[in-house]
Amino acid sequence: MTSWIPATCPLSLLPPPLRKTSLAAIPAGKEAAALATEFDFKGYMLSKAAAVNRALDLAVPLVEPRRIHEAMRYSLLAGGKRVRPVLCIAACELAGGHESLGMPPALAVEMIHTMSLIHDDLPCMDDDDLRRGQPTCHRAFGEPLAVLAGDALLALAFRTLSNPQSYPSSLSVPPSRIVRAVAELARCVGSEGLVAGQVVDIESTGRAEPVPIERLEYIHLHKTAALLEASVVIGAIIGGGSDPQVERLRRYAQCIGLLFQVVDDILDVTKSSQELGKTAGKDLASDKTTYPKLMGLEKSREFAEELNRDAKQQLEDFDREKAAPLVHLANYIAYRQK
Amino acid sequence: MTSWIPATCPLSLLPPPLRKTSLAAIPAGKEAAALATEFDFKGYMLSKAAAVNRALDLAVPLVEPRRIHEAMRYSLLAGGKRVRPVLCIAACELAGGHESLGMPPALAVEMIHTMSLIHDDLPCMDDDDLRRGQPTCHRAFGEPLAVLAGDALLALAFRTLSNPQSYPSSLSVPPSRIVRAVAELARCVGSEGLVAGQVVDIESTGRAEPVPIERLEYIHLHKTAALLEASVVIGAIIGGGSDPQVERLRRYAQCIGLLFQVVDDILDVTKSSQELGKTAGKDLASDKTTYPKLMGLEKSREFAEELNRDAKQQLEDFDREKAAPLVHLANYIAYRQK
Repeated sequence: MTSWIPATCPLSLLPPPLRKTSLAAIPAGKEAAALATEFDFKGYMLSKAAAVNRALDLAVPLVEPRRIHEAMRYSLLAGGKRVRPVLCIAACELAGGHESLGMPPALAVEMIHTMSLIHDDLPCMDDDDLRRGQPTCHRAFGEPLAVLAGDALLALAFRTLSNPQSYPSSLSVPPSRIVRAVAELARCVGSEGLVAGQVVDIESTGRAEPVPIERLEYIHLHKTAALLEASVVIGAIIGGGSDPQVERLRRYAQCIGLLFQVVDDILDVTKSSQELGKTAGKDLASDKTTYPKLMGLEKSREFAEELNRDAKQQLEDFDREKAAPLVHLANYIAYRQK
Repeated sequence: MTSWIPATCPLSLLPPPLRKTSLAAIPAGKEAAALATEFDFKGYMLSKAAAVNRALDLAVPLVEPRRIHEAMRYSLLAGGKRVRPVLCIAACELAGGHESLGMPPALAVEMIHTMSLIHDDLPCMDDDDLRRGQPTCHRAFGEPLAVLAGDALLALAFRTLSNPQSYPSSLSVPPSRIVRAVAELARCVGSEGLVAGQVVDIESTGRAEPVPIERLEYIHLHKTAALLEASVVIGAIIGGGSDPQVERLRRYAQCIGLLFQVVDDILDVTKSSQELGKTAGKDLASDKTTYPKLMGLEKSREFAEELNRDAKQQLEDFDREKAAPLVHLANYIAYRQK
């Protein structure tokens, strides 16, 4: 562990199986996997994403000042698979809550995700012109509105999560759950979460020497895994999960967070540019540290399998039917083709 | 009321005495004023500001990634009178809470205030080089760090407010109070609060025609008054104030929020540039709408007096001794010389 890794970083305290690169066989969650084959995952994803889109549309009405709300809606409603909010709702349902109870935290994580994309795309950051096939927020609305739309979405995430009117009037959500969820989400966004990942990413680009694996993992864990973790954890908290349940789901989320990146690196060297929609293999060519480069392609695939198995193991004590969406979400991340 | 004022704007629903410009005599809070003369206001401000500074220093430790925490600390600890956090603590104490209970919300409002200054100063916004006598955050740390420091402070405000460890271990804060405070703070920051004010301000600059008074007031109420209101209100909520108490203190805060701007406009035409530290009278010269320009200097002073009286009236049902800090804070805003 090098000195630049924050001593206080919660994600650096990952459990051993996540940190080691040895690929000892771990018993797979076979029962859960067998059950999962009967589950209509595509239908589940589409119906939940549609519900999320409807709720997002209502959460940002086109009121005055119109221009800022147009900018917020432009980026928030630009599409995407809604993986984070669906994870949140699935975790809420697995913990015993109804979909409508999981919707406010689901909207909150999607607002945070969108905010981070808007600010990352700014000219002073990654200076991107396109996002999800359309001009980035600052290209469409100008830089000032893009900065402010990000700020407003960040605030709206916390407002949505904490406002009693966000929740169905028939359900009374204990305030203690909301307070825990707010604290969890705030931690994942800030200077020990998303922001930390972006800062270390910025500091690591354009350097002569290759990025060490620990630093690469730090960036992934903070830029990608932190919000995936928060999505699952706050869904479970709002849904009424017990402390042990929340912690098992946290571990599940940490596994799929790292899995997401390992698979991304594998796809980068195995898929053609055309299939992937970006310059394939460029990470390898530009001397950027990736998992295939560090441990070889085959071992990277084995590592991904291990992470997928470990994720599913965390679900074995839950109701099997209710766990199916999260089992399939792990498979979806592991076996995606782009 | 022109069409661009949001129908949902909570601050546009100000009570009649705040909206009218007639200066009918309102009975002054004489008893409170008499008591206030015995109160060591300067000592109070200095001791509370020192406590806030100590707590801010501890709230942002210089951990890794160091650069982002340096940027956050640079702007957060750059000085300032700490009016917002002192208002928050004073309201908390008036509502029955101890100073230590009011500290987490006090830190949160100062973090939000600092975030808004950092983002407002950005090259794509006001493009300011100096703030509180030192280079602005983006001048000292570069634009990417300044954007991210703002984001991180916004997140940290909600983390500080919601984290049980922010509060003294001997005091149990009901989660319902924290949830209300989070929702209140989030509303005041977002696209119907601070961000709304900044957006309308940006849209109003560089235009040929003068800014109408309604629009000017909208900008002031959202850019300045919204956070002053949130400071007082969340202090009162965390302190355990009853609903009527919280609403009286909200009214107090709305009065001093507008008072702050009226006095600012008056100072701008009456003080010399040297005394004020900026180009005096430039608002009048540049055809910007100000209160002295609209209603004349004398009427503006009367309006300020009226707002000050109205603010103090809201305090008359409270314990007189505990209300002294807020009485003096209103006077401080009304009679300041810069």
